[in-house]
Amino acid sequence: MAGETIITIVGNLTDDPELRFTPSGAAVANFTIASTPRTFNRQTNTWEDGEALFMRCSAWRQAAENIAESLQRGMRVVAQGRLRQRSFETQDGQKRTVVEMEVDEIGPSLRFATAKVTRTQRQGGGGGFGGGAPQQGGGSDPWATSAPAGAPTGPAPNDPWAGGGGAAEEPPF
Amino acid sequence: MAGETIITIVGNLTDDPELRFTPSGAAVANFTIASTPRTFNRQTNTWEDGEALFMRCSAWRQAAENIAESLQRGMRVVAQGRLRQRSFETQDGQKRTVVEMEVDEIGPSLRFATAKVTRTQRQGGGGGFGGGAPQQGGGSDPWATSAPAGAPTGPAPNDPWAGGGGAAEEPPF
Amino acid sequence: MAGETIITIVGNLTDDPELRFTPSGAAVANFTIASTPRTFNRQTNTWEDGEALFMRCSAWRQAAENIAESLQRGMRVVAQGRLRQRSFETQDGQKRTVVEMEVDEIGPSLRFATAKVTRTQRQGGGGGFGGGAPQQGGGSDPWATSAPAGAPTGPAPNDPWAGGGGAAEEPPF
Amino acid sequence: MAGETIITIVGNLTDDPELRFTPSGAAVANFTIASTPRTFNRQTNTWEDGEALFMRCSAWRQAAENIAESLQRGMRVVAQGRLRQRSFETQDGQKRTVVEMEVDEIGPSLRFATAKVTRTQRQGGGGGFGGGAPQQGGGSDPWATSAPAGAPTGPAPNDPWAGGGGAAEEPPF
Repeated sequence: MAGETIITIVGNLTDDPELRFTPSGAAVANFTIASTPRTFNRQTNTWEDGEALFMRCSAWRQAAENIAESLQRGMRVVAQGRLRQRSFETQDGQKRTVVEMEVDEIGPSLRFATAKVTRTQRQGGGGGFGGGAPQQGGGSDPWATSAPAGAPTGPAPNDPWAGGGGAAEEPPF
Repeated sequence: MAGETIITIVGNLTDDPELRFTPSGAAVANFTIASTPRTFNRQTNTWEDGEALFMRCSAWRQAAENIAESLQRGMRVVAQGRLRQRSFETQDGQKRTVVEMEVDEIGPSLRFATAKVTRTQRQGGGGGFGGGAPQQGGGSDPWATSAPAGAPTGPAPNDPWAGGGGAAEEPPF
Repeated sequence: MAGETIITIVGNLTDDPELRFTPSGAAVANFTIASTPRTFNRQTNTWEDGEALFMRCSAWRQAAENIAESLQRGMRVVAQGRLRQRSFETQDGQKRTVVEMEVDEIGPSLRFATAKVTRTQRQGGGGGFGGGAPQQGGGSDPWATSAPAGAPTGPAPNDPWAGGGGAAEEPPF
Repeated sequence: MAGETIITIVGNLTDDPELRFTPSGAAVANFTIASTPRTFNRQTNTWEDGEALFMRCSAWRQAAENIAESLQRGMRVVAQGRLRQRSFETQDGQKRTVVEMEVDEIGPSLRFATAKVTRTQRQGGGGGFGGGAPQQGGGSDPWATSAPAGAPTGPAPNDPWAGGGGAAEEPPF
């Protein structure tokens, strides 16, 4: 996918993430990030909360499972993804449009917290996914049926933990 | 600070973060993020690594300590901050310029990892900082001597963990 | 304002911008940017349009007037601003939420077009605004009544055209 | 290309853009954007300039020609692109690294200026490029020799000016 609107949001989860599985066994996590800006009031010399932005988010596959396992209501996160618009009709026939974020990367913010990080199995490493429903086994593409268009366009990013060098090598300066 | 160049980088730490303290006791963490893009080669039908971007980063105060405690060489992170340019002279009198990132928010990516998140003491909670060097005690501003201009311009962001409601309340839909 | 969600959108105006003035004489321009991503279909080897994102935008003061004078329906623009959420009640009492963008910088994209650029009067230069309604004259703040909170927090950015050097000086390399 | 570091910069051109052509006839424009942040000094109650960020930029093909025709030293622009790092050796054998921006979209900022926008020929419309060297004709890829890896990965974005509807249709609300 090219020409998408990339966005980074920093904020707090309004609730625990919800983890579900598509019929083909792909995991998807849904949650909302509340991002509250602050204004400096020069009269009172204090910071005041502005109106919060609530962004509905979805994440897929291994990330979805890791999110469900790691994040909870209230936690501060930093998330990058692509802004999406979805139109639908309400039960009484009204047209509605919502703006959502398809999350590509997310992590718990280390501003007010520490994190003990544990590597998960790589995809293809087998096991660990959906209780016996292999995510990408058997030549079937779990995305084919269920993922929104564009979701799987990204490659599996470079993973220096997997091998010897990769990005963990010395920078060129 | 207004008009700064905001940037989000996703990549892997090239080494463990280095934690140091300014004379006034403020913590600063330095590290480099390597971000490697990938190109899809339509001839071979495979993804190929592009040239990595190595970004020198610095983070301050409590975040610096949390980073040093949580992140290690090779870990994948998502970081947001401001792009900075710094000029200096080499020992033999040559002028050099480096581009660096002042990190505002960073977290371990949950794409290939889970994280066990633990809240740290809030600033002002006393203790835990620099071995008895109170971070913001005694009316002295630890930033005054050592922090780059603009570093402390941000407010302490809203923290829903601290109290009852805040951003953790129900979204308005 | 700190902690806002910054966003950059590239797309086309769905209509000519609408220019209005607040009771105090401040100009505001409203328009919608449609941003359409594209997916590469490896089966057919062609690019296909994804679902468009329609973003409602507002811009203020001199920028609003410049936008109204320069941009038209269908033009491709690149815009940076802050994501905002606004809640309201419909006439039949339903609660609704819309996501909008407060534009800080916008320009016509030079990807498929050229532009003949003309400097406008600086603020304070008098004239040119709202037919005799001085933008910031008389000690009255046109923002006080009408601007959304946070709108005027940004400083007038550096303007190298105004004087001799400024940012137009030689870069340090 | 996936996983690239996307960045938006607002600033002023330090000089007129330089336009060159690769041996195969592809246009490339080079220029530097100076972005100067401002800090609010609460003691003096005034805004003060921070240290400028100078970003070397390159743009390709039709955009390059449009940039050369439209932009001049001192003009304020808003630009989006991808951050790139390039390593090279100096004449005396020292290794150097520079960070540059590959511009995808750029336009003159309408904050202090108006623009009279004129559509250029679409690619494929023939003529106008490199004096008879057709940009994409004859099966030869002008990018093959000269463009940096990844440059042509983006599709020609949707262009509502070209036909009837496209993105210029009514938004769904």
